Amino acid sequence: MTRGAFITLEGVEGVGKSTCVSTIETALRESGYTVLVTREPGGTALGEQVREWILDEREGGLSGEIEALLMFAARARHLDRLIAPALAQGRWVVCDRFTDATYAYQHGGRGVDRRSLDALAYMVHPELEPDLTLLLDAPVAVGLQRIQDREHDRFEKENIEFFDRVRAAYTEIADRAPHRVRKIDADQSVEAVTRDILAALLEFRARFDGVEQ
Amino acid sequence: MTRGAFITLEGVEGVGKSTCVSTIETALRESGYTVLVTREPGGTALGEQVREWILDEREGGLSGEIEALLMFAARARHLDRLIAPALAQGRWVVCDRFTDATYAYQHGGRGVDRRSLDALAYMVHPELEPDLTLLLDAPVAVGLQRIQDREHDRFEKENIEFFDRVRAAYTEIADRAPHRVRKIDADQSVEAVTRDILAALLEFRARFDGVEQ
Repeated sequence: MTRGAFITLEGVEGVGKSTCVSTIETALRESGYTVLVTREPGGTALGEQVREWILDEREGGLSGEIEALLMFAARARHLDRLIAPALAQGRWVVCDRFTDATYAYQHGGRGVDRRSLDALAYMVHPELEPDLTLLLDAPVAVGLQRIQDREHDRFEKENIEFFDRVRAAYTEIADRAPHRVRKIDADQSVEAVTRDILAALLEFRARFDGVEQ
Repeated sequence: MTRGAFITLEGVEGVGKSTCVSTIETALRESGYTVLVTREPGGTALGEQVREWILDEREGGLSGEIEALLMFAARARHLDRLIAPALAQGRWVVCDRFTDATYAYQHGGRGVDRRSLDALAYMVHPELEPDLTLLLDAPVAVGLQRIQDREHDRFEKENIEFFDRVRAAYTEIADRAPHRVRKIDADQSVEAVTRDILAALLEFRARFDGVEQ
């Protein structure tokens, strides 16, 4: 049995990741794939606990280094328990955020040394990286505008300069890994974003299913 | 104001660390030092939570890598919140286990790559190491004998080969860092161990207070 593909969605707050995850899930299921949809931090008891710790303001002021260590602990668990077994069974995994997000938020946003994150990534997934990453990109003001009516967690309360750094870090990742990361213009109508997502997915499927046969 | 000294206690289960922590605390207070006694994992809300995750069997089967990531996340918090401020105020800090324990248990015991732990230690405390580490050493069977009446956590239920590897890793640390680590023979009467601990402490105080003046 060939292993499934590992697809991740990335982007700052308000760019429409959740909608795109649903779009991808539906498209894949309709094409007959078995799909696991998951998110980070989350997916396991440890992951949900880490999500609480990181997003909760009451604990207040966790350093970028602590956030990164907790994220990778949760990620290791997520990989062991859910992602790796699903891929091995031939399921396709669609994950809302993965290691790129730690580079974007904790390195780009909070200034954690990039080499430390390289060491953590090597420790936790030396051999696995996403097969396809869809990076939803829009000017930060657009994303923040879209989430202005939500109740905000600790990250969503960061200032616009923080998100500009996160966005810049995401763009740098896309530039470094063009074989893996497809940047999608998220500053369009939902219909146009959906069209671009589906086109990227179709192109990827042709490539991945071709290689894996 | 000169900064305080950072003293750590290390050793496998049953070697008598708790008693030695009390001995050191009492001796230091009687000599007029202000002392913070703490332990790892622990000391902060995050530390106590990590302690639960790691020692609890219900969560079951955390990998050595996950344990190490969680330990260093808790350690970073412990340093930020308690240890570094206390040292800066001139207090002496006595800590029941620190980074050496992660090398002994997660590298020696569980086989986590040493270089990964080097990266974590560099990320979390690039400039701080204990000024004095007292390593309580006894044959593993002696320690396990002493704790046989306790209710055992996940680590205490490990087999003797596991603890032999932990002990060997501790010995290797002591051999590599003779300037910092004093090995104490814990396979003696409590009185003899206390005498050796106090002698090591007296020698250290002469050296540390001499340097710091």
